[in-house]
Amino acid sequence: MATTLKTPENSAETDAADQPAEVRFRMRIMKGETIAIGPGKVSLLEAVRKHGSISAAARSLDMSYRRAWLLIDEINRSLKSPATISEQGGQSGGGCVLTPVGESIVKLYRDVEAQAQNACADQIESLTQLLKP
Amino acid sequence: MATTLKTPENSAETDAADQPAEVRFRMRIMKGETIAIGPGKVSLLEAVRKHGSISAAARSLDMSYRRAWLLIDEINRSLKSPATISEQGGQSGGGCVLTPVGESIVKLYRDVEAQAQNACADQIESLTQLLKP
Repeated sequence: MATTLKTPENSAETDAADQPAEVRFRMRIMKGETIAIGPGKVSLLEAVRKHGSISAAARSLDMSYRRAWLLIDEINRSLKSPATISEQGGQSGGGCVLTPVGESIVKLYRDVEAQAQNACADQIESLTQLLKP
Repeated sequence: MATTLKTPENSAETDAADQPAEVRFRMRIMKGETIAIGPGKVSLLEAVRKHGSISAAARSLDMSYRRAWLLIDEINRSLKSPATISEQGGQSGGGCVLTPVGESIVKLYRDVEAQAQNACADQIESLTQLLKP
């Protein structure tokens, strides 16, 4: 099948006109108008896990520290138990790590993307067959 | 399960703070930088089917005629065989109907959304359980 799952590892963009079709699944869990869990917040949690602080995670995503902090705050406010723990060091200086809840969110979310694509492989193949090569 | 699939039929927005979590699945099939098949284009095809012309479809989606026409043109250029047929009547006056290919795209796309949500029901339930009620 000429489709691949879009993940942070293979998301390099090229502008070749005849590259194969690429499938992106995105799930959002909404609470009212707010995206409680969605691709942006999960990518931010992964960046926090990788870089060990909100400021470094924000830089890695080309996002302002303020926006990253507000998103993390929004995630944690929406959860029964927080997804991150900030270590001492002041508002922008301290480290930040994922809690077990944060780890679960990342794992469940990425499982959903992969499993959705597997479950819909036949329809995705039918759709891509309708496209010009 | 306190989650419902977001569809055009039940997408009325409210700002009640304690409404149940709502799950939205969105698939995009990319060709390079272009979304060949995605939620916006599928909603536009559905509106064309319902309203019988690009201009009426555009109005129903609060979209300019020009933008709707360009999106339909982009869809048809990306396909081996077009998704719509425009009837006589000039650039903005004529009717527009879906071809069997257009009908297939709508059906396959909506099947993907429903099937993805069914396949991932366990993970979605686990994620929503982490949210405050």
